[in-house]
Amino acid sequence: MKKALAFDIGGTKIYSTIINENGEILAEIDKFATPKSLDEILDILSNQIKKHENETDIIAIATAGAVNNENTGIVSSTGNMPQGYNKIDFQSLSKKRVFVENDANSAAWAEYKIGASRGTSVSVLLTLGTGVGGGIIINNNLLKGKSGAAGEMHFKMYPDKRRKCTCGGWDCFEIYASGKALKIDAEEMLNDKNVTTYDVVEGVKNGESKMIEILNRWQNDIATGIKGLADIFDPDCVVLSGSMAQFVDIKKVEEEVNSDIVTPPTSIRLATAGNYAGMIGVALLAIERGL
Amino acid sequence: MKKALAFDIGGTKIYSTIINENGEILAEIDKFATPKSLDEILDILSNQIKKHENETDIIAIATAGAVNNENTGIVSSTGNMPQGYNKIDFQSLSKKRVFVENDANSAAWAEYKIGASRGTSVSVLLTLGTGVGGGIIINNNLLKGKSGAAGEMHFKMYPDKRRKCTCGGWDCFEIYASGKALKIDAEEMLNDKNVTTYDVVEGVKNGESKMIEILNRWQNDIATGIKGLADIFDPDCVVLSGSMAQFVDIKKVEEEVNSDIVTPPTSIRLATAGNYAGMIGVALLAIERGL
Repeated sequence: MKKALAFDIGGTKIYSTIINENGEILAEIDKFATPKSLDEILDILSNQIKKHENETDIIAIATAGAVNNENTGIVSSTGNMPQGYNKIDFQSLSKKRVFVENDANSAAWAEYKIGASRGTSVSVLLTLGTGVGGGIIINNNLLKGKSGAAGEMHFKMYPDKRRKCTCGGWDCFEIYASGKALKIDAEEMLNDKNVTTYDVVEGVKNGESKMIEILNRWQNDIATGIKGLADIFDPDCVVLSGSMAQFVDIKKVEEEVNSDIVTPPTSIRLATAGNYAGMIGVALLAIERGL
Repeated sequence: MKKALAFDIGGTKIYSTIINENGEILAEIDKFATPKSLDEILDILSNQIKKHENETDIIAIATAGAVNNENTGIVSSTGNMPQGYNKIDFQSLSKKRVFVENDANSAAWAEYKIGASRGTSVSVLLTLGTGVGGGIIINNNLLKGKSGAAGEMHFKMYPDKRRKCTCGGWDCFEIYASGKALKIDAEEMLNDKNVTTYDVVEGVKNGESKMIEILNRWQNDIATGIKGLADIFDPDCVVLSGSMAQFVDIKKVEEEVNSDIVTPPTSIRLATAGNYAGMIGVALLAIERGL
């Protein structure tokens, strides 16, 4: 059975493990805080690769940032990563093939192969975390676009430039649907710069009506974005993953979405492939397409 | 060379002609006002089919409304068509194969095969007319979705329910980017229920600043929607067609779009396949996929 040495490289943590062609995690997961410099990131990767490449058939890297259509490098800049990260020549790290894919695309693939969107023809995955990622699968293919950057969840929520997104653009879905967005909603609605996402979530648990109002606003923005994706893709399902997904009332969002779209109803689902979906997805992609 | 008897069935007109596998129009185009009753529509279709089916290899129908994945019938309701239209059994009209596709999808296919998006891997077509239609082509395939209804341009422009769309939903792209939208913008900004799209367009020609402001608002909404589509699809190009496309300042919209997306720049183009793109596209699809 084929095996991949899989990494998940994000702005906060780098994970590595070994995954087989069934998506099973075979080795303990190594975890590193993402260093501030490019050289230190390269050190972590090459040490892990030296240690494990002989036991595996391919190197599979899920990463922040849009990845090109050749699955070899990064297309766009990645705000959360050290400068120069988007110029890494991943292939130079190993004599084995190094297969790279965007982390949300990878997670979408994991959900499609072993998780919540298994057996569907068209599915959209949203990762709701500090930011928002997206991965779209159409008839057994990841939607990649002309340069590999498709699935960016930066479509606009207002046409009149109200809230700056972390990407530098205006009013992107990400800045209304992310964890950061929930904090901004709370800041605006409470007129308090120090309120945290945690405060909102705890307040909701305690039945505080203002906090419920804030969460509902955030949830309504998520539903609004999903309506658009539903009308554009007519998907079997939209899968929500990431640390913020647990705070979404899935049934309520599904009802709201299906009450205000022109395509036939879609289903909203929580992700089931787990926290390592990125590594599982990129390992499965690498074994299937990179070997 | 293969030939299709092609129809374009819309809320106002029904067209028919004969088109070959190169997309060339071989016969004079018959034109009918769309009747108010289903039976009269069926009469027009069956008369034309009786007259021409022996000279052709397949019947190809571009129609208002979302069309199923089998290309045999309509999925959703079609507000502009007589009641019962969405239940038509198109195949019963001929012993030849009757191949049906949505009109905007058909136009997108024509642009892709012989028009403005030829040679691209990912393209989005928007038909800007009384309403807005959409057709998306990814790696030589029309995006159809789970039920055939994908490409509906009813994604949301605001999350807080301001303007009702003709579809019954709220704040859809269609109701901010269509000809009808331009009239609503003018009504709102001039506080005058009687102003027409024509008044705006004429006013702009005469350099009236208020009319220019109204057109700019409408154009900004179009650009906002295209930004979202660009970030979602990372397309080579977005093609604008339909009667309202001529009023869009293509270069200005392209600049605005590319200044506010995270994917690599896209190109905005005017359609070039002409007024009969719907019939050409569905004929090419029918000959390629339906035979």
